Amino acid sequence: MSNPDRTADGGCVRPPLRRRPLTEVAAAEMAKKLKALADPVRLRLFSAIAGHAGGEACVCDVTGGIDVAQSTVSHHLKVLRDAGLLTSERRASWVYYAVVPEALLDVAELLDLRTATLSGAPT
Amino acid sequence: MSNPDRTADGGCVRPPLRRRPLTEVAAAEMAKKLKALADPVRLRLFSAIAGHAGGEACVCDVTGGIDVAQSTVSHHLKVLRDAGLLTSERRASWVYYAVVPEALLDVAELLDLRTATLSGAPT
Repeated sequence: MSNPDRTADGGCVRPPLRRRPLTEVAAAEMAKKLKALADPVRLRLFSAIAGHAGGEACVCDVTGGIDVAQSTVSHHLKVLRDAGLLTSERRASWVYYAVVPEALLDVAELLDLRTATLSGAPT
Repeated sequence: MSNPDRTADGGCVRPPLRRRPLTEVAAAEMAKKLKALADPVRLRLFSAIAGHAGGEACVCDVTGGIDVAQSTVSHHLKVLRDAGLLTSERRASWVYYAVVPEALLDVAELLDLRTATLSGAPT
């Protein structure tokens, strides 16, 4: 009887590739963005901004319920901005933050595995 | 003339919320998963596994082009498995790794901002 996990020459079964793995350069870039996001306070700030219509919000409107000092909020927003995930703009007395959607498309596509796992068709 | 960035009472403009911000608990969970992913070698391994049909691959088939020791690969795969992003199974002489798609759906949804920024309709 043949073993489905072993090929005729004793090698492992190799399902077809449907998407090329990340290159070294692309992975390094993506890791920087994910490191910036991988903090609970930064995720809450980011999700609060992204959750507003237009992906933009006043800084005064995204800190509700986040119990940290204003200086800590500013630090975390700077990390997200430095990573290219947010932009900021002062208007009148207020600073508005906006998400940069294209900065995260590659990450979203890598992580959205619904299609990849439902369809087994090789490319 | 009215200032579009200032309301009648001098407050900032508040675009409507279309998605609730992450809770403290959800953000802590998501940060753990993102920390596990936020490493160039882990991202390359994860993308190599996810890129195979069925989101599954033999360990021997995902290390091509990644110039690190086998013990380092094993360590990184363990980090991804401990974070709930991969499962592993031994079959015959080979260990197969599979992505856990539901583990990352919430992250993918948070990061996929195409819809959020193209549509300005409040909920």
